[in-house]
Amino acid sequence: MEKQDQLLMKKQNKNLVLDIIKNKSPISRMEISKITGMSPTSITRIVHELHEQGFVRETELVTSGVGRKATLLDVYDDVLYTIGVEIDRLIVKVGIVNYIGEIISFESMTRDVTENYSDTLEKLNNCIKELMTEKDIRTEKILGIAVGLPGFIDYKNGIVKVSDQLGWKNANLANDLKKHTGFEVIVDNELKMKIVAENFMGMAKDSLNAVLVGIGSGIGSALILNGEIYRGESNNAGEIGHTVIDPTGNVCSCGKIGCLATYISEAAILADSRKVKDVQSIDDVFDSYRNGESWAINILDRTSTYIALAISNILCLYNPEVIILSGNTIKKFPEIKEAIEKKCDLYIWEPLKEKVKIVYSMFTDRGVVLGAAIQAQNTLLDLE
Amino acid sequence: MEKQDQLLMKKQNKNLVLDIIKNKSPISRMEISKITGMSPTSITRIVHELHEQGFVRETELVTSGVGRKATLLDVYDDVLYTIGVEIDRLIVKVGIVNYIGEIISFESMTRDVTENYSDTLEKLNNCIKELMTEKDIRTEKILGIAVGLPGFIDYKNGIVKVSDQLGWKNANLANDLKKHTGFEVIVDNELKMKIVAENFMGMAKDSLNAVLVGIGSGIGSALILNGEIYRGESNNAGEIGHTVIDPTGNVCSCGKIGCLATYISEAAILADSRKVKDVQSIDDVFDSYRNGESWAINILDRTSTYIALAISNILCLYNPEVIILSGNTIKKFPEIKEAIEKKCDLYIWEPLKEKVKIVYSMFTDRGVVLGAAIQAQNTLLDLE
Repeated sequence: MEKQDQLLMKKQNKNLVLDIIKNKSPISRMEISKITGMSPTSITRIVHELHEQGFVRETELVTSGVGRKATLLDVYDDVLYTIGVEIDRLIVKVGIVNYIGEIISFESMTRDVTENYSDTLEKLNNCIKELMTEKDIRTEKILGIAVGLPGFIDYKNGIVKVSDQLGWKNANLANDLKKHTGFEVIVDNELKMKIVAENFMGMAKDSLNAVLVGIGSGIGSALILNGEIYRGESNNAGEIGHTVIDPTGNVCSCGKIGCLATYISEAAILADSRKVKDVQSIDDVFDSYRNGESWAINILDRTSTYIALAISNILCLYNPEVIILSGNTIKKFPEIKEAIEKKCDLYIWEPLKEKVKIVYSMFTDRGVVLGAAIQAQNTLLDLE
Repeated sequence: MEKQDQLLMKKQNKNLVLDIIKNKSPISRMEISKITGMSPTSITRIVHELHEQGFVRETELVTSGVGRKATLLDVYDDVLYTIGVEIDRLIVKVGIVNYIGEIISFESMTRDVTENYSDTLEKLNNCIKELMTEKDIRTEKILGIAVGLPGFIDYKNGIVKVSDQLGWKNANLANDLKKHTGFEVIVDNELKMKIVAENFMGMAKDSLNAVLVGIGSGIGSALILNGEIYRGESNNAGEIGHTVIDPTGNVCSCGKIGCLATYISEAAILADSRKVKDVQSIDDVFDSYRNGESWAINILDRTSTYIALAISNILCLYNPEVIILSGNTIKKFPEIKEAIEKKCDLYIWEPLKEKVKIVYSMFTDRGVVLGAAIQAQNTLLDLE
């Protein structure tokens, strides 16, 4: 075999072995050999290199099989860090995450609706530098930054094509933030970042087929299919908000009739509520529900019906192992969970029912930051 | 690098190089080297082995670049064959397909609704042996058989779990047909076989993200996502027939209200038609439409509306490059195409419209047979 092919293969094998140690630690060299099909000699050589580079250490000695002893391997938490960022309309969150996915430092800042783009970047940069100083983390330990935000993102070039929520259009965020901070930057939609966190250590841990549904001011979903983020041809896959669920129903701003979003988004719930009562915010609607006001009960009953129908449709089309519900509506109005579950039980097609788990995100307010940081690791770490 | 790793990699490289020559022929060694990143020396060695094994030959000499000459490579059509089979309620089709995906021999046989399982297998075996004799193809040239049929299939074990159309349940088809024929057998749903043909040389040629929609007695779809067949957790992905499209609409046999199938399947169209006129078959409905009978025009107008809504939803969720419409309704009633296209133009969300092609399958009646044969190659060929 030629030298150049061998080098490429060596590099691939090394990154593979490191991934396995990180995800399955503590693990023995022999187990790695079994998983990869690579010879014990190769594994020993690679582990030695990874140790020299500061990634891998030996931990305990255990008895494996008939009297044989095996040393287990683990990774160093602090070999590198990534920075996860969530930018939302009214809040910016920053977290430093270590190599094994622990948030070791976290900060959130309010964001004014009128705050302009470079002010946000400046604030972000200051916050990152403060957190690094606080935890005494040197610049060369930081692999890079990942930002999750609402909107349509050109993730390959790190450009925010449109974010109505932030009021940004064609913002070259990856480049601009790199100029401010000096770090490599990747950018993606917040739901995509969040499903990475769910897949790494949340409700879809290690799942090959998972759907994360976001229900709040926007209606959308992110997908892991066959073990990878699924984006579709133009990064629009999972656009459930504009699937038609009732062709004789509500008119949608997109020009169609009966889109799911016109029944379950915050704006839709508010618009219908205001036909009855002069409510200020979605919280007022939830309060009215809790006060037993029939109009609020009716509107939110319809919301849960359409959410359950959407879940049933998602299941038919993607046939995932798990569907994770998240977003402000679920968070602020947990009473809706029971209604959704009862209706799912009625709507979901029997052959699909037994195989799927319908669950709720367990990350409270740090899911996007964590997922972004992990995605930064996945994308930017490529050991020679 | 260890011997065992080198052997594995050599094998992978060899299969990769063969795939490239087959799909991109005529191609030079240098181009293969560029595509794979492997060294010219390795490519030369692998090509030599593939030539010795009867797969690859040199074709013409061309001038490439400044005065340099390159010999192009091609594969032998007849190095091996696979057999594609489609079993449907009233018809069984068999085709022998050569290594470059040409059907060199084809036969179709009627199947009686009451015909039992082993009779069908016996008939199939006789037909295969006859076609082989006719074309003088030796047993050792046949890599294997692939069968596409309607129903829910355990493709890993080649078992037909349920096929209502054929009246089969838990039929161990791969094993049983192997006993009859002596060949390796794989089994999959007919739409999955067909999308393989579309992806190989049809309307979704080389597409990474494609959806094939089948509209006829059954309503379903098959998916290529990120370049692979997408099956979901229990091989039910793409089950569009049971997505709810109108929650105040028709009752479905699955127990839900408003499933897509209740508006566009042959049975649904027939049931509605019989409220007006004593029609015998779906062809009578199409004839009534052609005679200008208003009830038929109204029912089929609604059919095209729901098909277009389904296409719009498919686009939102999978964001494919191409959606291929196929099935008996499209074939027997081509007038529906114009109506579907007009409505798609109204329904499809603008940001998605420019990226997608909505097309019709060009395979007349041999798509499943061809796709099955190609899938047999993809699955069963693994050169040492």
